[in-house]
Amino acid sequence: MNAPSNAKPRGRQFFNNPGPTNIPDRVLRAMDRPVMDFMSDEFVAIHHACHAGVKRVLKTDQGLYMYNASGHGAWEAALANLFAAGDTVLIIETGYFSLGWAEMAVNLGIKVETIAADWRKGADVSKVGERLAKDKAHEIKAVLCVHNETATGMVLPLSDIRRAIDEAKHPALLLSDTISSLASIEYKMDAWGIDVTVGGSQKGLMLPTGMSFTGVSNKALDVARKNKAPRHYFHWELMNGRAPQKFMGTAPVHMFFGLQESLKMLEEEGLDAVFARHARLAEATRAAVRAWAADGKGPQLYGQSPDRLSNSVTTVMMPEGVSSDPLRKVAIDRYNLSLGGGLGPLMGKVFRIGHMGDLNEPMLLGCLATTELAMKTAGVPFSPGGVDAAIDSLAS
Amino acid sequence: MNAPSNAKPRGRQFFNNPGPTNIPDRVLRAMDRPVMDFMSDEFVAIHHACHAGVKRVLKTDQGLYMYNASGHGAWEAALANLFAAGDTVLIIETGYFSLGWAEMAVNLGIKVETIAADWRKGADVSKVGERLAKDKAHEIKAVLCVHNETATGMVLPLSDIRRAIDEAKHPALLLSDTISSLASIEYKMDAWGIDVTVGGSQKGLMLPTGMSFTGVSNKALDVARKNKAPRHYFHWELMNGRAPQKFMGTAPVHMFFGLQESLKMLEEEGLDAVFARHARLAEATRAAVRAWAADGKGPQLYGQSPDRLSNSVTTVMMPEGVSSDPLRKVAIDRYNLSLGGGLGPLMGKVFRIGHMGDLNEPMLLGCLATTELAMKTAGVPFSPGGVDAAIDSLAS
Amino acid sequence: MNAPSNAKPRGRQFFNNPGPTNIPDRVLRAMDRPVMDFMSDEFVAIHHACHAGVKRVLKTDQGLYMYNASGHGAWEAALANLFAAGDTVLIIETGYFSLGWAEMAVNLGIKVETIAADWRKGADVSKVGERLAKDKAHEIKAVLCVHNETATGMVLPLSDIRRAIDEAKHPALLLSDTISSLASIEYKMDAWGIDVTVGGSQKGLMLPTGMSFTGVSNKALDVARKNKAPRHYFHWELMNGRAPQKFMGTAPVHMFFGLQESLKMLEEEGLDAVFARHARLAEATRAAVRAWAADGKGPQLYGQSPDRLSNSVTTVMMPEGVSSDPLRKVAIDRYNLSLGGGLGPLMGKVFRIGHMGDLNEPMLLGCLATTELAMKTAGVPFSPGGVDAAIDSLAS
Amino acid sequence: MNAPSNAKPRGRQFFNNPGPTNIPDRVLRAMDRPVMDFMSDEFVAIHHACHAGVKRVLKTDQGLYMYNASGHGAWEAALANLFAAGDTVLIIETGYFSLGWAEMAVNLGIKVETIAADWRKGADVSKVGERLAKDKAHEIKAVLCVHNETATGMVLPLSDIRRAIDEAKHPALLLSDTISSLASIEYKMDAWGIDVTVGGSQKGLMLPTGMSFTGVSNKALDVARKNKAPRHYFHWELMNGRAPQKFMGTAPVHMFFGLQESLKMLEEEGLDAVFARHARLAEATRAAVRAWAADGKGPQLYGQSPDRLSNSVTTVMMPEGVSSDPLRKVAIDRYNLSLGGGLGPLMGKVFRIGHMGDLNEPMLLGCLATTELAMKTAGVPFSPGGVDAAIDSLAS
Repeated sequence: MNAPSNAKPRGRQFFNNPGPTNIPDRVLRAMDRPVMDFMSDEFVAIHHACHAGVKRVLKTDQGLYMYNASGHGAWEAALANLFAAGDTVLIIETGYFSLGWAEMAVNLGIKVETIAADWRKGADVSKVGERLAKDKAHEIKAVLCVHNETATGMVLPLSDIRRAIDEAKHPALLLSDTISSLASIEYKMDAWGIDVTVGGSQKGLMLPTGMSFTGVSNKALDVARKNKAPRHYFHWELMNGRAPQKFMGTAPVHMFFGLQESLKMLEEEGLDAVFARHARLAEATRAAVRAWAADGKGPQLYGQSPDRLSNSVTTVMMPEGVSSDPLRKVAIDRYNLSLGGGLGPLMGKVFRIGHMGDLNEPMLLGCLATTELAMKTAGVPFSPGGVDAAIDSLAS
Repeated sequence: MNAPSNAKPRGRQFFNNPGPTNIPDRVLRAMDRPVMDFMSDEFVAIHHACHAGVKRVLKTDQGLYMYNASGHGAWEAALANLFAAGDTVLIIETGYFSLGWAEMAVNLGIKVETIAADWRKGADVSKVGERLAKDKAHEIKAVLCVHNETATGMVLPLSDIRRAIDEAKHPALLLSDTISSLASIEYKMDAWGIDVTVGGSQKGLMLPTGMSFTGVSNKALDVARKNKAPRHYFHWELMNGRAPQKFMGTAPVHMFFGLQESLKMLEEEGLDAVFARHARLAEATRAAVRAWAADGKGPQLYGQSPDRLSNSVTTVMMPEGVSSDPLRKVAIDRYNLSLGGGLGPLMGKVFRIGHMGDLNEPMLLGCLATTELAMKTAGVPFSPGGVDAAIDSLAS
Repeated sequence: MNAPSNAKPRGRQFFNNPGPTNIPDRVLRAMDRPVMDFMSDEFVAIHHACHAGVKRVLKTDQGLYMYNASGHGAWEAALANLFAAGDTVLIIETGYFSLGWAEMAVNLGIKVETIAADWRKGADVSKVGERLAKDKAHEIKAVLCVHNETATGMVLPLSDIRRAIDEAKHPALLLSDTISSLASIEYKMDAWGIDVTVGGSQKGLMLPTGMSFTGVSNKALDVARKNKAPRHYFHWELMNGRAPQKFMGTAPVHMFFGLQESLKMLEEEGLDAVFARHARLAEATRAAVRAWAADGKGPQLYGQSPDRLSNSVTTVMMPEGVSSDPLRKVAIDRYNLSLGGGLGPLMGKVFRIGHMGDLNEPMLLGCLATTELAMKTAGVPFSPGGVDAAIDSLAS
Repeated sequence: MNAPSNAKPRGRQFFNNPGPTNIPDRVLRAMDRPVMDFMSDEFVAIHHACHAGVKRVLKTDQGLYMYNASGHGAWEAALANLFAAGDTVLIIETGYFSLGWAEMAVNLGIKVETIAADWRKGADVSKVGERLAKDKAHEIKAVLCVHNETATGMVLPLSDIRRAIDEAKHPALLLSDTISSLASIEYKMDAWGIDVTVGGSQKGLMLPTGMSFTGVSNKALDVARKNKAPRHYFHWELMNGRAPQKFMGTAPVHMFFGLQESLKMLEEEGLDAVFARHARLAEATRAAVRAWAADGKGPQLYGQSPDRLSNSVTTVMMPEGVSSDPLRKVAIDRYNLSLGGGLGPLMGKVFRIGHMGDLNEPMLLGCLATTELAMKTAGVPFSPGGVDAAIDSLAS
């Protein structure tokens, strides 16, 4: 066998990172077109349709701002518009990404208080209410949380958090990062009382990385209007003045070409059907992992709270003393299967299977069967029968 | 769940028909380009490179003619250039496609004699020698055969056939259809003494349907030169006059754009590595089928001669009384997996798994696992463990 | 300046060959998609829609057969289905392509009689009637003609030809090649009494080369049914038996993906608007050429019968003693403009400007202005003001 | 004519906005590929190659930071990393974009002083030196300027500005926006002593909007390291910690797929050849405009300093009392030619012809000829002969 065939495995790559995700051919092709004047009537119509579509996905009738930026840009937009240096926010610990958002806030001069949590069990929502109840002076401006923690594969019950804030009769805004859950797991911005929703293009919306956005409640818009902190690129009020596109600078028209198509696909399938498909595929994934763990010596589910396991990503904990690195390396180098690694303190200790966005049964089964093959090749101990369990789960 | 989601299953289609086959993105993208003057220097260079490349794949240093036509066009080219009405050819029965080529010969006025065979066992090569030995008058102009019968998933030992002809001291030409084996299974036109090789674009060359070709030995070219039978579109000598492209009419430049890229991919991997990959994936497929058949009640391998089982397609015989139609329907409608059906007398009695061209481990395992899922959904009896057996086969 | 920049001129190529023609991005992208089972319900639906659409373009309610072949294949289909060796046909001389079709007939054993004509003036239709009137025995089976002779840029009045046949009370079939006129210039198969229309994918249908077709009248189908001449690949009756696609062998699904899109584009614009656009752009082209010829020393229109000048291609005759080769070479090598050359006896004596298919005002003006630039660069004498005349023509 | 044909003009759009610009098919196709893990070895290699390539285009050996953001993001990156609220910068007025950068600085709390200038003549560089010489306390931290003002079509002599700063013995940094000049007009970051160069993807680099970057001198990096002002998304030092990609959040891999191809194209042609081509096409554009203005009643060049006219965009001033809006509307609606409008105070008073990036002679001549056609259609007075003058200019 010659070198190039080692270097470039043949056939389609199976991309099961939990983001970015598979981009459907329809979306890639929609983006493969000549440029368009972003001030033209033609683009304005596309832009309006996309805004309306994203609001339907967010389930909000309130504000929406889009950014030529990654999800971290939308994080910064939320913080920069609502808070000034010296303000305090409360963040609910969930894992790597909650830590990241907190770090950003600190770098922007915001004081951060954390509701600590065991990553495998998930945060205790009652602690949020307790903390806010003590904040009689209302120094805490907002509660920040990550709806679906991509690092641990666990979700937070957002409506419970809103209820905790309300029961504490506290005016704190509720900011939620839904980057890895939107368009994969049910999300109801208005019904759940979310003030700012941070989303990105490269997960459930099945687009390349490059655009992010924030849904913003009227209450949050009021706060932003009164905030005098310096900002420009992500400045909501300035963006309002940049009609019709509301972008600072040139609008990324190709992202909109893709977004228009991905919204069409989501609505052709129907959002409820999309969520049901994710639930079905996630359950099959968990069935496979549980089978691998059957004798207690194989990889197991990282998350320990069954009602909080994510339908868009499954984090799998390696057996004690076995690194996930050789497994992931053999998967990608030999079988062209891309699995996610562990982030931060979980590096080497877990691997992650993304099952969000453009995925169906054979794609998932191909991933799970090849993961078994790679475990065998890499010498990772596991109980057999994972794929059979997944098939059973899907057939039922 | 709404109607469109039923009508259009989500996610990438798993295409495991035994042809046409998966077209790699690289090839599709290479074809997604503006048109080019087929008389331009730029196209002439591409054309020459492609001719040289196809000859390397055929392993021939003799003649090559390409057609803007499907494989049936190349079949006709072989017949129209070499034979006149009233000539006799001997065809080796292998299955649906050998019947088809014979039917074409009859329609072109050629007399056809057949070496009959049990499709599941494959033809007895010694009968070819016996028949030719009896043909003292050398009325038989050629032996025609299908190297890899796509309908049954079985191959013919071409060099044995050549030996049989030679040992009979018969001047018959040897014509071979390699449509579903070329660039998937070893093929040595010159070394094996093949006079005409019929190939097509849409199998191991990983291109869309639309171009076919014949490798032609010098001996066959001599015969063609003397043949006065009427012909034009596929006329080899006329094509020689249509330099530089040797096409009757406009050359299909986009097929060449794709061919240039697919040849590059084949040579990056290396033909031997390509064949080894096909052997590995085919063996895993057979391991799965054998597991399904373990208790004697499930689907089983159609082919009964182990040394003739094809590495590019596996034909699977359904249990007595169980049609393959509902299985194939649930596979495509519910899981977006396209499996091949039975052809001619095998309709409903078998299904076929194509594993040629652009395929790797996760693609195949996804197909096999989903076939199990579809068998379960459709109520086809089978012994479990097919995917496990395939994984074991691949890991070894 | 370095070599690569000479070798590969920058920017988009202006493709003004009279076929193949510019393929719109929408069509290229529609073809840039994974393969599909040609027996699947999904493809059958596409196939049916395309058949219906092509019939609307042909303006026929009678038969239609499609081929995986270039236009020459459809020529052969027409001849092979309708005639046997020894039959006689009458061909109307128009230029290079009428000669080609006649040559093919001869190679298929058909006797060919020709109505000779001055290529620059076009055939005298009355001679057709005269000849047929003399054919009391009805030995002439058909009249063959090229609607739009791509080599000379001149059209034939087809309804006049049908009238001449009818007035001669002759049963001859009327076969017409509309390869370079269809979907560019008005064509009414049924109303004009055409029995067989030969069309191809790569001109007004704006597709890559690779598919051709014949519209066939019921009268011609009757003739074909009685014809026992050997044939297979292009055999209409056999194709009827290959439902649902009616292709001999694998159907070229990608051509249909493109055809579906190009038909959609034609119908979005409206066929009448398509013809009007071609008329407008052709008139501007002729205005430019007439300006270049103003002082009698520059290039001039090849065609001398104003009412027969084609709206899809303009053939331009070089000044006496000046070859078109250096002009075309500088156009392509230095300015990335591809112009058509002269065919057969016109080689070097003319160049051709294709203005069919996907073309608008700036594309044509860019071509004409660059042709002026190339004439200047190559030292071809011409009167200035061609582009100005074209602009005036378009503005009026 | 039916409505769709009005709504969607046929044929390829001629895109002569001065940014975003034409994206070559090669670049679009390079971006039309599946996603890739941004942490994979394969992407890291692409990333490194792109970094090295952009540095070659900038002609710098110092720092480079890339952003998932539009050019405005890179503007903000430059300001946020180098300055704190209360700092003072000096901006050289050139037009709309210099005003925009100044407005951003003010919004970020930075004090802005302006070297005023007549937009049609361009700034007087000596005033920069005079102002800095007076700033004995070195309160001015930096001089900001726009190398190629896209609104007016005029360039600034950057090396003269550096000399003025040095001659004033002032430590001010020199920040330059080269968004609409890079890879179109010569730029030498290190040789010219630029401390920060702001660039974007959607102009001379021929990519979609979506990525921007800053070249950063070592001197500027030192300043940034000491700057404690709050920032995160654009934070250079934090980005250094995000090896290997140095992106905050997910890297936009598709932009890199495109950048890799566009860099390849630039280097195949050669940067000097690229600049020479832009000069040639720009001169032809100016020749056309001068011809239109010949009798003093038509449109004329906006810029009045011949040595400062841009080679990437030409701003054309309308005759007194004639708005550019109807002209631009007829150009796009009727002829599918997209011309740039006037920005800010120039709205309606000028139109702009972009001639940067992927452009050749026929593309430019098609644009100029169609502009003449549109002027005629819209009733804009002009002297004829613009295209002839452009052809003459190109032929010389």
